[in-house]
Amino acid sequence: VQSLIDQIANDVANLVGSGKVADYIPALSCIDPQQFGMAVQTTSGDSFATGQADTRFSIQSISKVLSLTLALQARSDRHRVGKEPSGDPFNSLTQLEYERGIPRNPLINAGAIITADCLVSDHTEAKQALLDLVRQLAGNSIHFDEEVAASERETGARNAALAYLMKSFGNLENEVDQVLDTYFHQCSLAMSCRELANCFCYLANAGKHQDKAIVDIARARRINSLMLTCGTYDRAGEFAFEVGLPAKSGVGGGIVAVVPGELALAVWSPGLGPSGNSVAGTEALKLFAKNSGLSIF
Amino acid sequence: VQSLIDQIANDVANLVGSGKVADYIPALSCIDPQQFGMAVQTTSGDSFATGQADTRFSIQSISKVLSLTLALQARSDRHRVGKEPSGDPFNSLTQLEYERGIPRNPLINAGAIITADCLVSDHTEAKQALLDLVRQLAGNSIHFDEEVAASERETGARNAALAYLMKSFGNLENEVDQVLDTYFHQCSLAMSCRELANCFCYLANAGKHQDKAIVDIARARRINSLMLTCGTYDRAGEFAFEVGLPAKSGVGGGIVAVVPGELALAVWSPGLGPSGNSVAGTEALKLFAKNSGLSIF
Amino acid sequence: VQSLIDQIANDVANLVGSGKVADYIPALSCIDPQQFGMAVQTTSGDSFATGQADTRFSIQSISKVLSLTLALQARSDRHRVGKEPSGDPFNSLTQLEYERGIPRNPLINAGAIITADCLVSDHTEAKQALLDLVRQLAGNSIHFDEEVAASERETGARNAALAYLMKSFGNLENEVDQVLDTYFHQCSLAMSCRELANCFCYLANAGKHQDKAIVDIARARRINSLMLTCGTYDRAGEFAFEVGLPAKSGVGGGIVAVVPGELALAVWSPGLGPSGNSVAGTEALKLFAKNSGLSIF
Amino acid sequence: VQSLIDQIANDVANLVGSGKVADYIPALSCIDPQQFGMAVQTTSGDSFATGQADTRFSIQSISKVLSLTLALQARSDRHRVGKEPSGDPFNSLTQLEYERGIPRNPLINAGAIITADCLVSDHTEAKQALLDLVRQLAGNSIHFDEEVAASERETGARNAALAYLMKSFGNLENEVDQVLDTYFHQCSLAMSCRELANCFCYLANAGKHQDKAIVDIARARRINSLMLTCGTYDRAGEFAFEVGLPAKSGVGGGIVAVVPGELALAVWSPGLGPSGNSVAGTEALKLFAKNSGLSIF
Repeated sequence: VQSLIDQIANDVANLVGSGKVADYIPALSCIDPQQFGMAVQTTSGDSFATGQADTRFSIQSISKVLSLTLALQARSDRHRVGKEPSGDPFNSLTQLEYERGIPRNPLINAGAIITADCLVSDHTEAKQALLDLVRQLAGNSIHFDEEVAASERETGARNAALAYLMKSFGNLENEVDQVLDTYFHQCSLAMSCRELANCFCYLANAGKHQDKAIVDIARARRINSLMLTCGTYDRAGEFAFEVGLPAKSGVGGGIVAVVPGELALAVWSPGLGPSGNSVAGTEALKLFAKNSGLSIF
Repeated sequence: VQSLIDQIANDVANLVGSGKVADYIPALSCIDPQQFGMAVQTTSGDSFATGQADTRFSIQSISKVLSLTLALQARSDRHRVGKEPSGDPFNSLTQLEYERGIPRNPLINAGAIITADCLVSDHTEAKQALLDLVRQLAGNSIHFDEEVAASERETGARNAALAYLMKSFGNLENEVDQVLDTYFHQCSLAMSCRELANCFCYLANAGKHQDKAIVDIARARRINSLMLTCGTYDRAGEFAFEVGLPAKSGVGGGIVAVVPGELALAVWSPGLGPSGNSVAGTEALKLFAKNSGLSIF
Repeated sequence: VQSLIDQIANDVANLVGSGKVADYIPALSCIDPQQFGMAVQTTSGDSFATGQADTRFSIQSISKVLSLTLALQARSDRHRVGKEPSGDPFNSLTQLEYERGIPRNPLINAGAIITADCLVSDHTEAKQALLDLVRQLAGNSIHFDEEVAASERETGARNAALAYLMKSFGNLENEVDQVLDTYFHQCSLAMSCRELANCFCYLANAGKHQDKAIVDIARARRINSLMLTCGTYDRAGEFAFEVGLPAKSGVGGGIVAVVPGELALAVWSPGLGPSGNSVAGTEALKLFAKNSGLSIF
Repeated sequence: VQSLIDQIANDVANLVGSGKVADYIPALSCIDPQQFGMAVQTTSGDSFATGQADTRFSIQSISKVLSLTLALQARSDRHRVGKEPSGDPFNSLTQLEYERGIPRNPLINAGAIITADCLVSDHTEAKQALLDLVRQLAGNSIHFDEEVAASERETGARNAALAYLMKSFGNLENEVDQVLDTYFHQCSLAMSCRELANCFCYLANAGKHQDKAIVDIARARRINSLMLTCGTYDRAGEFAFEVGLPAKSGVGGGIVAVVPGELALAVWSPGLGPSGNSVAGTEALKLFAKNSGLSIF
């Protein structure tokens, strides 16, 4: 595995820096694009890393899987969020209006806002509860980046529009401001590739982290299926086709992927393609799947 | 004219009470549906009325014409609002998203929120400026209904979604809360049919109220054309087809119409049809056009 | 009037040739763009013309008003076509699918195909019946341009898609091929500005052509209202706003307009703006409305 | 396996007959809904069956996987069809228009029509070439049901609309009639559960049928990923979530599923749920996945 990922780091070197760094908030736009990291954590306990695998970055939408996991520990809201691919750009209001405030799935912004609403209802301190889970999975030094969270709020008019639209359809239990505060904080989590690979290994391990069940195997499989069909914005089909593994990306340039029963891996490079997925990271995942022969299909 | 409108009041009596009273806020839902009023004000100074023509009701969306008139006194924002019929229900976000935060026209909710934003930018006291204009046109006792305005805010999640969506596209100059406060107040204006007929007569009179120019004739004509193509939610084509006069309706059950060069008229009955227009009021307008032979076509 | 239109011809001279000549069929694309004509026919029998007012061109979508007039002589299909502005480009399938095969109005392609279907049902020789009407209104030498009609068929895949979609919803009585043959022929009618002004004068004259009723006054007014709200593709609101007269345009570069009670006028210049309306023709209509002071508002 | 599927047949017995038999063509509507069959074919050569596993039925959309397989033997058209879930009902024109005639994926009707167009271009006898492939995979007695094919053509207005729309965007190489003839024939293929399980086993076997490569392993995986993300109309996400296996359904009531490396299975029961998938068949697949523990996630 080590030589495989070292080779991949070498092969994608010419793509590192291409694409466009997310620029909607200052804290993201000032990242040096010339960075690449990759880490693997196996279910048998081995770990491998290459490049800047210990540099923390803003995990952004990758956090949607973690908040969903926390929500699924407490409940199963069958009617407030769908399970279908969205077939549209990641933050479209059109579909949300047409479907009367029910988001297509929990991995688009609207769906993750519903998840945050559930956390606010279920926990007296929703943000702390999420942080506790992440620290359990990836280490006690993980924290929210308050500067990023504040910037998200500043520029969050579109997410506020999504939240108010769902509220107008009666699909939000708590105040918009409180729900968005939770949502913007989860997006601001700062983690490294190595931490992410550790963190997501429970999805490769039947829901267990170090023999402790985070979710049951049925829920772990369902989360994996959601990542496969909905995890990479409007390129989920392309990812399934080319990579063949459940994955979730974020506009910070990170992508995590899962090989059920085997391992979790994380890649990071800040330059994004037109769909919001890391250019070098996507190519690294394609090469990993191709050269390792690992695929769920 | 008096016998004409008395006859109409008689002819639509069986429709008064049919339809559905707007029920999204308590202040509207408790209105007695068994009411009908009609008033005519000619450009030569004659006035006629029948039924409950002196009972005040919530003018709601009819106010969009008045706020637009005030905004057009100060400016002409060609790029912030369109002039095209919306072809969709009156508060659709879909079109607004597709067209990148530029509302189709000033007589749908999104467009009227932009108008309110202009008023907030142009006046130190936007609400008072609007109230001053309405009092100039229809009498000093006109006032906002603060209970209705407060209720609108309580249930205004959809309008907040529209405002935040436009803000996310950079098409809102002021804070959402301040703009919506102005918007919800204008909707709460309480006026009678007689007051509305007086108020709107400037649009039949080349823009003049008692020889004083409210807007110039070109702007008056443009406002009339907007009412004809966009004034009655998604039934504007049907209204043009069946009534043949510029008109603007509100969910309080009022409708105003204009015969250019001749007169303004107002009808009111609280029961609404599926498109949000007063059932008895719409029929009264059809009969008025048919029996008087007045039509712009 | 003569000096008015001569002055207009002079004022728009710099716009003649700008825009883009329709190029989807060869017969249209080879037209010299440096042409402009304008003609007026009053209800009192006077006629005026300037520029190339006697040059025939392909009237294209202007024919939709004529086929509708013929259909309305025989029937009133209230449920097969709507009366609302489309709010979308002129040949959109999206709205047609959403509204289950019922076109928004008779002046978009889908609606005109329904009209053609009615003509095929109502007449043993639909094409001849339409030609008879046009000859009655504008002269016996009017004819279909078979080369244009054949070209339309060659490139008519999109209209075939519209027709088959409506057929799939059960909203087409006859075979697609036969209906489209009628439709493509009507679009191929070749007429001059002078002929068009004569032809459309019945809509300014309470439905009468030389004291003979073509349609009754109620239908004439309804056709005028449809032209105002739906006659110029997705710029109908702009036309109502800027010109203030019922009008119908075609991609051949012609536009007809009606001043109820007064006159019909026709302009022509082949260069089209982005919405498919003649650039110089649109400007000529704006100037005519502004300088004559004629407006329905 | 045998006891597993016998148990499933028993467990779903109460669902057999529920739902609604496809009724858009007579040949399908007259099927007795009280039927259920299931068959498994393993990559190691074992086969199991229960219920009416030898009764042939119309495979309908299941054939899209077979025509795609044949097309992929000859070419790889990257730009004529996408790979993304459609997020809409299976035959929507809206998305096809918005995306300028490029179908979302090869497993919706529009995409399968493009596949048929490729077959017509690549083979002198496209229908025979497809039949040859199916006979190679499932036996020489497989045939088209000409009565079903003729019925499909009779009621095929919507598919004609799709084809003409794509032609209008330049995304169809051959005549609409010829392409649809191929498409309607492939839908008419009549096969039993046992034949389908045999037929699809190459997708569980790295693309090989009895040691002969039908497609290479990369293409087999890609077809599996398309089935997972797009194979069951607008319930693909739900299928991935609940079943966790690549699957393709048809309105004849059949569904095939693949466990990569292990087996292919086919179920059949004519009653359909609201999304067009067999009610008892869907439940049978859920039980198979749950009770066998087989899942790609």
